Amino acid sequence: MTALASIESQDIAALMRDMGIKARKAALELAQVPAEPKEAALKAAAAKLRENADTILEANTKDMEAGRAKGLTAALLDRLALDSNRIEGIAKGIEAVAQLPDPVGRELARWSPEHNGLDIARVSVPLGVIGIIYESRPNVTADAGAMCIKSGNAAILRGGSESFHSSRAIFDCMVAGIREAGLPENALQMIPVTDRAAVGEMLKLSDYIDVIVPRGGKSLISRITDESRIPLFKHLEGLCHTYVHASADPQKAVDIVVNAKMRRVGICGATETILIDSSVAGRLLPRISEALVAKSCELRGDETAQAIDGRIKPATADDWVTEYLDAIVSIKVVSGVQEAVDHINTFGSHHTDAIVAENATATATFLNGVDSGIVIVNASTQFADGGEFGMGAEIGISTGKLHARGPVGVEQLTSYKYIVRGNGQTRP
Amino acid sequence: MTALASIESQDIAALMRDMGIKARKAALELAQVPAEPKEAALKAAAAKLRENADTILEANTKDMEAGRAKGLTAALLDRLALDSNRIEGIAKGIEAVAQLPDPVGRELARWSPEHNGLDIARVSVPLGVIGIIYESRPNVTADAGAMCIKSGNAAILRGGSESFHSSRAIFDCMVAGIREAGLPENALQMIPVTDRAAVGEMLKLSDYIDVIVPRGGKSLISRITDESRIPLFKHLEGLCHTYVHASADPQKAVDIVVNAKMRRVGICGATETILIDSSVAGRLLPRISEALVAKSCELRGDETAQAIDGRIKPATADDWVTEYLDAIVSIKVVSGVQEAVDHINTFGSHHTDAIVAENATATATFLNGVDSGIVIVNASTQFADGGEFGMGAEIGISTGKLHARGPVGVEQLTSYKYIVRGNGQTRP
Repeated sequence: MTALASIESQDIAALMRDMGIKARKAALELAQVPAEPKEAALKAAAAKLRENADTILEANTKDMEAGRAKGLTAALLDRLALDSNRIEGIAKGIEAVAQLPDPVGRELARWSPEHNGLDIARVSVPLGVIGIIYESRPNVTADAGAMCIKSGNAAILRGGSESFHSSRAIFDCMVAGIREAGLPENALQMIPVTDRAAVGEMLKLSDYIDVIVPRGGKSLISRITDESRIPLFKHLEGLCHTYVHASADPQKAVDIVVNAKMRRVGICGATETILIDSSVAGRLLPRISEALVAKSCELRGDETAQAIDGRIKPATADDWVTEYLDAIVSIKVVSGVQEAVDHINTFGSHHTDAIVAENATATATFLNGVDSGIVIVNASTQFADGGEFGMGAEIGISTGKLHARGPVGVEQLTSYKYIVRGNGQTRP
Repeated sequence: MTALASIESQDIAALMRDMGIKARKAALELAQVPAEPKEAALKAAAAKLRENADTILEANTKDMEAGRAKGLTAALLDRLALDSNRIEGIAKGIEAVAQLPDPVGRELARWSPEHNGLDIARVSVPLGVIGIIYESRPNVTADAGAMCIKSGNAAILRGGSESFHSSRAIFDCMVAGIREAGLPENALQMIPVTDRAAVGEMLKLSDYIDVIVPRGGKSLISRITDESRIPLFKHLEGLCHTYVHASADPQKAVDIVVNAKMRRVGICGATETILIDSSVAGRLLPRISEALVAKSCELRGDETAQAIDGRIKPATADDWVTEYLDAIVSIKVVSGVQEAVDHINTFGSHHTDAIVAENATATATFLNGVDSGIVIVNASTQFADGGEFGMGAEIGISTGKLHARGPVGVEQLTSYKYIVRGNGQTRP
């Protein structure tokens, strides 16, 4: 349960390769495991977590002490901190994933071409091996690990060095559950060293890892995007917009904008830019500003917006491309839905964007035109979340267009194969 | 219609970037286009192709003359050659794609989580911009171009230098059809220079191209895999297996093996290795060998196989990992289905593998255990083809696990977005 002493770089390369080989082997076995043992493994892991709560808290104390000594910010220390309530929450989270329908072995489509009489089925299978690279939250060890096991994937976990002992203690419980249910033990592995070089080596293992899920801040995601030869499920940022159309119900507009911006300012689904039609801005923008200022939100806007409401400070070009993750919002007055769509497609991050409108034509133009994973009408952008989508759990949100887009749940952690049944057919 | 003179490398970079920007813009427009104009554009393109058959044949004559002067092999010259029959075939192919159901705007799933009452729909959308890199066959210009337009994607085509004039003449017809139907003209672009540097620049355009489809031999695919920062739909090779289980119907086994190996030896779905259970090898292998030798197939096998049939030459370790694409087959005697599965997962290319068996348990073990895009029971591996699958057309076959696996048809050229409809919901 303790970190290996710092090791030589060629040893790290060998260590990572060895983990990759073990993971691939475990993945082939795990792909054959039916629903029940996977569910049993996760329930056992949750039980182990509760049984070993004291051990986990001791490990967490070590991390917290080291974190304070290193001068981590209060926000980082809060992400790192565990208590018995949080451990119970983690255990409940594992159990929730355990009870999801098995995403593997679903028949996604089945047909028989007339001209050859073959019976062709498209059936869901696990992706294979998933690499998870995360930062300070130790609960990701359990959340992401549980989702991988549930979907029949082997996983290689790489937690942040700040949470190393906490993550390791949680990991031990997960593996104990896996062992108890008779699943291949290497289905879940955690990198046993904190050296940053291990991440670099991990990103080269395209023969053994099918997809990497980076969980963390923009600098972590950027670095991984630049280095990785393995596909990623990721979003670099959530530069989300809420657009208030001329036909918007005024009260809905105020409520939705305030919630979208201020419910939690630090999450990827938080709105960063408000777009509002010029024909209603004079009447509606002061109400929206008022409600945001009452929640201590700083307002920055274009000249038209500033002319309407003196509380709005000037926005620079940077404001349209900044994910504040803070109580700041940029405001732009637009001529109509097409300008809004163009602004979002030009400056947005293809994550989540909303329109507040009662007019069906404007709504359709927006929903079709905005090139984002999630487009919303008349609701808050903060609903961009696998739990809110009813997926049970999410391993992240993807802004990529390939394979998984939007919240990535256990279904999105599967691929498919074609099973073709014949009765002796040869091809003419 | 002629190649630009060789241009400076910084000009190629600028040219490619400009094409990328134009393609992205066209893609956003094309994504909004309903089914009818896309169908009309393709039908018009087919008509233009027929009208301009003479121009295309003239261009092809230029390519053929240059090819002969360069000493291209007869096989390459045959791939390059067009005649009026082949042009009619290309036009018919475009019309077949035109008539496929529109893959865009399909509601893939729709549900409403109880706790928030949102109406969530997963709806298919185009991928965006697709890059096609191909070699000598000029018909790919039409086939791949038509599939991209049908699926609402903009495409950037890069044909082989040998077929430059032929491809360009076909391309002109495609663009004329697109223009006639009022679609954005830059929906289909073709790189106007033959410099190899253009491919390198194209592979860097990850901001503008969503996926690259390389069509060609192993060396082309390898080079693109190494260089590309853009995801690929590809298979490096088709190292396909046919496994004859102890329970196989003997006649089916002979017919399927011979067809799987010898129907066409140069395609990716051709079987390269035969695996056969030791309990039936003594009785069945001589019949299989006899039938293959009668078709002039060279046989290479392990020691057990050689002992059973003297016509079988020794196989080396290389034989198990060689895609012959020729009238040669490797033969290995195995102890049963698990050894067959392990051999395929170790040495195969995750493309297409078949079992011949009447026993349901062995069949299930094989279908579940083999980690390939297509797994087949009691039929020839040469059915690995989008047309045979009833997809109408395929742009290629993918051995990757992300997004598209197996034949890539127009459906696989789409992604999805979530459309969320609320009535004022804010998140608690």
